[in-house]
This record gives sequence, C-alpha cells and structure tokens, in this order.
Amino acid sequence: MSGDELEALAAEIRTLLIETTAKRGGHLAPNLGVVELTLALHKVFNSPEDKIIWDVGHQSYVHKIVTGRWQDFHTLRQWGGISGFPKPEESPHDVFATGHSSTSISVALGLAKARDLRGEDYKVVAVIGDGSLTGGLAFEALNNAGHLKTNLIVVLNDNEMSIAPNVGALSTYLSQARLNPTLYKFRADLEQFIQKIPKVGETTFRYWDKLKDSFKYLVIPGIVFEELGFTYIGPVDGHNLRQLTQTLTDATRRQGPVLLHVRTKKGKGYRPAEENPTRFHGVPGFDVGTGALPTASGPPTYTEVFGATLTEAAAHDDRIVAITAAMTEGTGLKSFAHAYPERFFDVGIAEGHAVTMAGGLARAGMKPVVAIYSTFLQRAFDQIMHDVCLQKLPVIFAIDRAGVVGEDGPTHHGVFDLAYLRMMPGLTIMVPKDENELRQMFLFALKMDKPVAIRYPRGQGNGGNLSTVQAFKPGEAEVLRTGEDAAILALGPMVKKAEEAADLLKTAGINCAVINARFVKPLDRDTIIAWARRVPHLITVEDHVLTGGFGSAVLELLAEVGVRSGQITRLGYPDQFIETATIAELHNLYGLTAEGIFRSVAGRPLTLASGKK
Amino acid sequence: MSGDELEALAAEIRTLLIETTAKRGGHLAPNLGVVELTLALHKVFNSPEDKIIWDVGHQSYVHKIVTGRWQDFHTLRQWGGISGFPKPEESPHDVFATGHSSTSISVALGLAKARDLRGEDYKVVAVIGDGSLTGGLAFEALNNAGHLKTNLIVVLNDNEMSIAPNVGALSTYLSQARLNPTLYKFRADLEQFIQKIPKVGETTFRYWDKLKDSFKYLVIPGIVFEELGFTYIGPVDGHNLRQLTQTLTDATRRQGPVLLHVRTKKGKGYRPAEENPTRFHGVPGFDVGTGALPTASGPPTYTEVFGATLTEAAAHDDRIVAITAAMTEGTGLKSFAHAYPERFFDVGIAEGHAVTMAGGLARAGMKPVVAIYSTFLQRAFDQIMHDVCLQKLPVIFAIDRAGVVGEDGPTHHGVFDLAYLRMMPGLTIMVPKDENELRQMFLFALKMDKPVAIRYPRGQGNGGNLSTVQAFKPGEAEVLRTGEDAAILALGPMVKKAEEAADLLKTAGINCAVINARFVKPLDRDTIIAWARRVPHLITVEDHVLTGGFGSAVLELLAEVGVRSGQITRLGYPDQFIETATIAELHNLYGLTAEGIFRSVAGRPLTLASGKK
Repeated sequence: MSGDELEALAAEIRTLLIETTAKRGGHLAPNLGVVELTLALHKVFNSPEDKIIWDVGHQSYVHKIVTGRWQDFHTLRQWGGISGFPKPEESPHDVFATGHSSTSISVALGLAKARDLRGEDYKVVAVIGDGSLTGGLAFEALNNAGHLKTNLIVVLNDNEMSIAPNVGALSTYLSQARLNPTLYKFRADLEQFIQKIPKVGETTFRYWDKLKDSFKYLVIPGIVFEELGFTYIGPVDGHNLRQLTQTLTDATRRQGPVLLHVRTKKGKGYRPAEENPTRFHGVPGFDVGTGALPTASGPPTYTEVFGATLTEAAAHDDRIVAITAAMTEGTGLKSFAHAYPERFFDVGIAEGHAVTMAGGLARAGMKPVVAIYSTFLQRAFDQIMHDVCLQKLPVIFAIDRAGVVGEDGPTHHGVFDLAYLRMMPGLTIMVPKDENELRQMFLFALKMDKPVAIRYPRGQGNGGNLSTVQAFKPGEAEVLRTGEDAAILALGPMVKKAEEAADLLKTAGINCAVINARFVKPLDRDTIIAWARRVPHLITVEDHVLTGGFGSAVLELLAEVGVRSGQITRLGYPDQFIETATIAELHNLYGLTAEGIFRSVAGRPLTLASGKK
Repeated sequence: MSGDELEALAAEIRTLLIETTAKRGGHLAPNLGVVELTLALHKVFNSPEDKIIWDVGHQSYVHKIVTGRWQDFHTLRQWGGISGFPKPEESPHDVFATGHSSTSISVALGLAKARDLRGEDYKVVAVIGDGSLTGGLAFEALNNAGHLKTNLIVVLNDNEMSIAPNVGALSTYLSQARLNPTLYKFRADLEQFIQKIPKVGETTFRYWDKLKDSFKYLVIPGIVFEELGFTYIGPVDGHNLRQLTQTLTDATRRQGPVLLHVRTKKGKGYRPAEENPTRFHGVPGFDVGTGALPTASGPPTYTEVFGATLTEAAAHDDRIVAITAAMTEGTGLKSFAHAYPERFFDVGIAEGHAVTMAGGLARAGMKPVVAIYSTFLQRAFDQIMHDVCLQKLPVIFAIDRAGVVGEDGPTHHGVFDLAYLRMMPGLTIMVPKDENELRQMFLFALKMDKPVAIRYPRGQGNGGNLSTVQAFKPGEAEVLRTGEDAAILALGPMVKKAEEAADLLKTAGINCAVINARFVKPLDRDTIIAWARRVPHLITVEDHVLTGGFGSAVLELLAEVGVRSGQITRLGYPDQFIETATIAELHNLYGLTAEGIFRSVAGRPLTLASGKK
C-alpha cells in the first residue's frame, strides 16, 4: 500500500472504531491513538510470523481490524463475538492474551529467547504505554532484557497518560525527553556546563553535586533506557506514517534490545475523545454526532457510594488517606482527591507498591484506604499477606469490580478475591448486600484497628435509603427471613436474588430461609451452624468461583465443628475462566439468578406456571 | 563513642556474629558486611524515633545487637528466641517486619508521608541491597518517591551480589558507577565528545545515535536515580566508619529523596565468608576455626533430586529451559546452569517477570521450568493466573521449600501455595510423597502439555530407590494400605507419617487405610469418594494451612457429589502466621506427626504403653 492509501485506510478504520464503540462500548480513545502505529507495525513486520505483543491489550482493536476481523468487528465485546483484548483462540495474530498491565516486555523477551534457542529468526515487538511502564513487572523485564541483549523491540506508546493522566518520576522524566532538545540547545548547555568545571572540587561526589542543576537541563532523551542496556530511538511522531515506518524499519536493523519512543495522541481524530481522553478511555456507548455519553440515571453505583462515604468520613478523621493505582475515577476517588489532595496518592499502575506503602502509612498512625479493582489486586497478593496482614495493620481494601464485570471478559472478572484473601490470617472480609450496607461496612471498618477487605460489584446499587445506620458486630450475619425447608446463605448482590428466589419458592410451597452472610471472614459461626442443623438443605450463593470461596468456608466450618448437615449446594462459578458477556448473561448462564437458585432448591426448573402461581 | 571505640565495638560484634551463627546457623555473610553501616546508621539516626527499615531483613542482626538484644542474641532463630528478621513485637527499633525482598522503599515512603501529614519530623531510612533493587516493587517505590519528593533516605547496600552474584542490566550499570570516574577522565571524555559534534547531522536522533558510544564512557554515577528524582550520593566505602557517618549526616541535610550508594563486602572480617560469600550467605552452622560447613550425609535433598532430574531430562529434550529468581543454588539449578548456560535464566529477584517470561518461552515452543520457593512464588500469583493458566501454557512450577521451613520463620514458611494455586483454572498440582516420586512426577509433568505445579519440602528425602518408575495418570492417588475404621488421605511428606500412625493405630486395634493423595488438582475423585463412603472417619493431612487447602478441596468434592460421609478431620496449620521453630518442632506443635495423627484418629493421646503394645 502507498502512503496515501494507508492514510485513507487509517481514516476508514477511525470511522469503524467510532461507530462500533458508539454502539457496543469499548476502549475508544486508546485505539484512535494507535491507528497509524498499528498500520506501520503491520507494514514493517510480517505478523503472525513476527510477533506483536500488545500490553494491556485494550488498544488492539486496529490490530484486529487489519488481521482478518474487520467483518466481525461489529460483534466487539459481545458474547461469542470479537474480544476487546488480544485472544490467541481468536487469531494467530494475537500471540498472547493480555488484559493486566505491564506484561508485554516479559512475554516478548520469552518469545525472543525461545526464537534464539530454536535458531529461528522472526522479530518480536512489545507495544507498551507510558502508564504500563510504571508497573514494576515492566521494569523487571527491561532490566533482564538489557542484560540478555537479544534482539527485541519495545515500542513505547507515549500518550502522556495511561487511563488517567500519568504520575511518577518516570513520567516527569519522559516529559523532559519529549522536549526533544535541539542540537543548539544541547550545545549551549554543554558550554555552560564546561565553564563551571574549574570552579569545583576534586571528588566526583562534590563535583557532581554542584554541577547537577546545570546538567539537569541537558536532557538526553532515553538515557535511562540506554543505561539499562537498550538502544533508545525517538521520540517519533506516532501519527506520521512515513516517519513511523522508516523508524521501525531502522529499529529492526539494530542488534540487541531497542526502545522506540513514539508519541501519540489519545483519542486522535475524534474531537470529543481528543478533548476528554479520560472519559473516552472506556465508554459504554455514546452519540457519534455530539460525543454525548449516556447520562447516569437511577440509583448511585457502589463506586460512587464508596467515594462519597470516604470523602465524608475523611472530614471527621484526618488520619484517613486514600491510595489508588492509576484508577482515580474508576474507583470513585475523584472527589476525595479534589477535597484532600495531600492525603491522596495515585501511585501509577503499581498495585504492589500501593499496598506496601499503605502498610507504611498505617504503621505510622494513618488509616489508609486502598481502592483497587478485584482483578488487579491479584498483583498485590503477597503484599497484602506480607506487608499488611503479617504486620496486623489497619489498612482497608476497597475492592471494586468484584464478581463478573461483563464485557471486559476473562482478564477482568473479579471472581477470585474471596479465595485469595480468605487464607490471609487476621484479615476481616465483608461483602455488602447493597450500597447502604457498603456505606455502613466502610464506616465500621474505619473503627476496626485491623486489616479489612470490602468487596463490591460493578454497577448500580438497589437505590435503598443511604442513611439507615446498621450496628455491626464482626462476623454477624443477617437473617432476612426464616423457613424450614431450606436456607440460602447469600453474599453481596446475591442476597437480593436469594430473596426473589425465596418468593418464587414460596409460591411453589417451599419455605426457604434467606441469610445475608455479610462476613466471609470471620464467618457467623453460630448462625451458620444453627441453620445447617435446622434445615435439610443449605445453599450458598456467591458471585465468585466455587474453588476456595465462601461456600468452601462454610464447608470448612461445618467439618470443623462436626455438624451432620443435610445437603449442601454451593452456587458460584465453576473451575474455569469465565468468558466475555454481559453481567446479566453470565449470572444467567451460571445459575446466579432467582431462577437459578429456585432450580437448585426445588430440584426442577422454574416454569412460568410455577413462578406465577 | 569515639571512632576508635566504634572500631573496637565493630570487632566485638563480628566475633559475636561468627560465634552465634556457627552454633545457631543464620545469615552470616550479609551481617558481616553491614557492621560499620549499621553502627553509622545508629550513630547518625535516633532510632526508634527515626525509622530504619531493613529490606529483606536478614542483615538486621547487628541492628538487633545494638538495640538491646545483645544478651539474648544467643537465642537467635530458636523457638521463642530472637528472630532472624526484623520483628516489631520484639523491639520498637524493628519498625516493620520484613523477609520478602524489595519492600523497604515502599514502607519508608509510607512512613515518610505519614510523618509529613502528621506534622512530625523524624527521619526515615530504607536500607536495600543491590539484589533487592532488581525487584519491580522497589522500582515502583523509587518512581513514586521521586514524584512525591518527600524527605527520605535510601541506602543502597551494594555488595555486588544479592544471595548469588547479581544479574541484570541495572547490576552492570551499578558496576560502572562503582568505577568512580575522576574529574580528569570525565573531562577527557567530554572533550572527545565535543570534538565530534560538528561531524554529525541535524536531528537529535541521528546525532545522539552516533555519539552514543563515546558518551557511554562518560558514566555519571547514579544518573538513573537522579533521573527518577533522587539526589544521588556515592559511592561511599561501607567499611569506613568516618566516611559513612559524615555522608549519612550530609544526606540528612538534603531536601527530598536521597539515594546513598554504599559499597560493602559480604562476609567482611571473616576470611572463609569473604572468600565464599554465597556459601556463607545462610549457614546451618560451621566450624569457626576452619570455616568448615557441615558435610552432607544421608539421602539427597528434594532440591538435589529435582536439580539432577531436570539436568538429566534436559539432555534428551532441548526445549527444556529453566528459570530462577536469584536462587540458582537454593533451587538446585547449579548443575543445569553449568551444563546448559544458554537455556538457563536467572532473572534477578523478579518472580513476576520469571513467570511471565516463562509464558512467552512456552508460547514459542519451549518447556520452561520455573523453580521458586513457595513463599516467594506468592509474588507471582497474578502472573501464574494471567500469563500461564489463562493462556493454557505448558509451564512447570517447581515449588521448593513448601510447608514449614523452620528457623527462617513466618515470612518464609511455604504454607499457602495449595490455597493460592488451587483456584487457578487448568493447573495440575502434584505433591510427591518422597524424592523418587518427585522425580517421577517431574518426568510426568514434562509430558503433559499444560500448566503444572509440583510442591516439595525443604530438606532430605527418605533415601528410597530413585529408579523405580511410576506410571502416573493425572489425578491418580495411591492406596498404600486398606483398613475399615478410618482412612488417612495424606499429602507429600505427611504420607510417611500417616503410615507410621497407621502402624501405631493397628497396635491399638484400629485398622486405618492410608492413601497417598499425590494430586491436589485434579483430585482422585473416585478413590476419595469411595473411601469417604467406606469408612466412618476420613482424615486429611497436609503441611499447609487448613483454609482453602487440600482438605478443603476434599470437602468441596464430597459436597459436590453429595456424599454422606462420616466424620471428616482436616489436619494442617490453623488460620494464623506460623512462628519460628524447627520443622520438627512445628510439626509436633500442630499435630503433623505420627502421634498427632494417632490422636486425631483414636480420639486420645498416644501413651508409651499403647504405642509399644
């Protein structure tokens, strides 16, 4: 394809991206930013023989469009459709599934070393954003790649923000590199620099100390990467196809690891997205003409209720600090960050550091609240164990997006948290049945002087009264209704479904108790044991995998005390990665609905007749 | 204290270190290396008001000796004695418990920000080794600290190796910094550099490209740290008390984050340790006069059998590659590394990268074996899930030091792995009853085309025949003896104890079946269900926490199929961090012995009489 043809193709792809995400939702701004970069990559590299790894992967739409998925692209993020992330099952061009951040350089290095050992000669390219580069995993890989010196190209897609504007010293460093100092400026600084040499002392230490300030202006783009063993090239205009193609070709001719610094504009080519790249990072759908996003209606989200409660509590307790890992908006911390900028820490995509730093803050007398999505908190598993629980420190984990999250699919579902948290000695784990209970649990957690985790789902609550004060005791469940035929122990958003199921069961002549478990750890031992003894059938329901989850905790308790219970049915997700579909579709598929619970208790499907009786 | 007095104290402390570790075992070489540094820190800083955080913490002996624990130091690493790692319960001078690597800068930053917010003015110092600096968590914290710009001192204790000689580009970089270029050299390079300027083209990119090689000699110590927002000071001789004290004092006068680069010699002052710092990193005890370490006798260790089997298998299959995270010797990979240097990767203290890189290697056709201790693999929880299991890649996890590890205590016990691995979809988990079974399982794993984890304990095997070939089927348990009164489902090293218990029980008239479970995932469903139906009492035994462990998997299975079993007793560790003591003491304390199992089955203690009947 000629340059003009590629430009025309780029425009056509942009239209497809905008129209599809307007309907289906998805990551619009990141993809608009990499249209030219993706076309240049596919022009220079021979995929799938050459391997292109997309870090995080939400910017892989253009790649999918140009590798045989143009026709199906309208099924984006639908059940059975094109995934919003690279998916090897979908195409050989998707070399590795991504979703979590900062993995691409490690993967690329593994591919490159395997290539070397097998005597093959394909090329390996990792495409990583400046935000992902703040993750420690990316640094570990850079350090190792610089040491191993194999041929490998890292394309730094620098849009000066990851999801939200970027933070961290490396980000400042990259901004300096972006200045692209001219030879003139460089020389002027150098002269000034040398003039000062006679004035300084003899040891390197003192000499360096005094010259440092003048030297700081002499920014060599990419020296950090050069020092780590990479050849640095850039910065290059990420929307100039000719320059990109030329530079990528040049990069393939170098020996050893190369870092190509590409500057792109998030949202490029669609004005509403260019003007507000954070809002257009991930969209639920929008109006193409006006760029208007759907206005919120109905009850507040769990995220919003958490954010408001935190901000409110912070007014009364100046020990409260909040930490996020590059997800200020997503975790509802925007108003807190605005009201208490000094007490707010966005540490970049660095979940491990977020948790360990929280440990330090707590040790010195603060009350840190760490707000991270369930799936990303997996990155901090050891830090929760080693730097919070082992130390018995009062850190509150506000775990958003717990349970299935819908269209973002298997890499984003938060269905493992109860299992990975439940083994942590000394951790209290709470799950609110609705947004008011989230508020109450959070206020209760602030009064506890120990590690606490609260997990809550994506999306809106039930719209209940937010001022009903609940008096909690640690490990106290709530018996919502009694019944002698069965008892449903439900967790979080499953409580409402259990109540609906109990209504349906009642019409079928089955009297079913419903218990809002509230605590996964410690369990309400007395209540659970009593109901296990009382009814012939106990059902646990959780928006979580069955392996090691809440139902498993109930089994452990009953075995421990030697209760001879009747039948125990655990509802939740089976031992597999959960696919991409809407939350409702997934709940329906796995029986986490009123009908599903009905079926489990009654031992038969709910027919319309029995439901309406 | 005067300089001379401090020198005398340093000598006295070295004697105490050598004599104590000769008897008790422990981390000798790292502590000998930081005697002067620790004394200087305690001279300049006012602990515990000022906070000193020891990264990893095995180098905190000197700190303990000079903060009120001299008298008790002889109890080092004993049950109820002085811990080998910082422990806040032990002393207010131990600000934060450490054990895992690379946490100190995050903790220090948390403490420093809490100090700022509370209007306090104490000083915060993190002491971190060059090895720990390769961990991504340390980079995340550096990046964040450089951004936040609060007062904080990071002492880089650079002994040019972590546990084993250091790897990675950063390590090469530090070696260059160590050269300490004089002003003269710097100037000469600079002149040469400037002479070349007229010859180059106009764009920064080309200009930089051509000048790079000459510029490379112009190494500014610490520019990477400066670029990340730190003031770099050093390198400083870590055994010169006067220089250390002066430089540390100077560091306290700077504003913002400071990195002080200190060069120390591991093993300093004890010749055998200076000559062989890797062997004297952690010792089981030794002869002070000769430096002779105890010679191995008896059966090989699990680690040795793993290493030998891997090396042997690699001769027949050139797709096998091995990865370690700075633990070549500890994980038994030394002979493999020697035989197949190209197929061996020591990635530094970077467990996350080790696992994700293994994913890349596997995707490109290799068979990666990742050998990491159970407790450190916690750092790669998300990578195992996201970059191996989700991708269904044939990576073998060789999980050493599973179960309690003895004297290294709570931060090092490997008692959570079954719980955190069991939830991973598609992962096979095996536990060998002895070293031959480890060998067979490993050979079997190589034939499987999927993710596999094998966990095995620290220490020697049973000395059994290593050439008995076992034919495995996935998820097949081994019934070792039958019996109708009870059935013991035992895992790994607990199998032998279960057999001993069965012998004791027989003498007491109780006939007990013993089953070597072998697989934690998939479980041998048929065997477990059959025995649960057949006997009135099922006992599971695992060297692991009870929460979410093997016993829990058995409960899930029985609940799933609705088996009305009799009593089920799960033996393992309770929901708490396990203390420091020998492996035998801990097994005894928690009933993971033949006597303990007897007690659980018989419902009464084993008296000498009943045992000998």
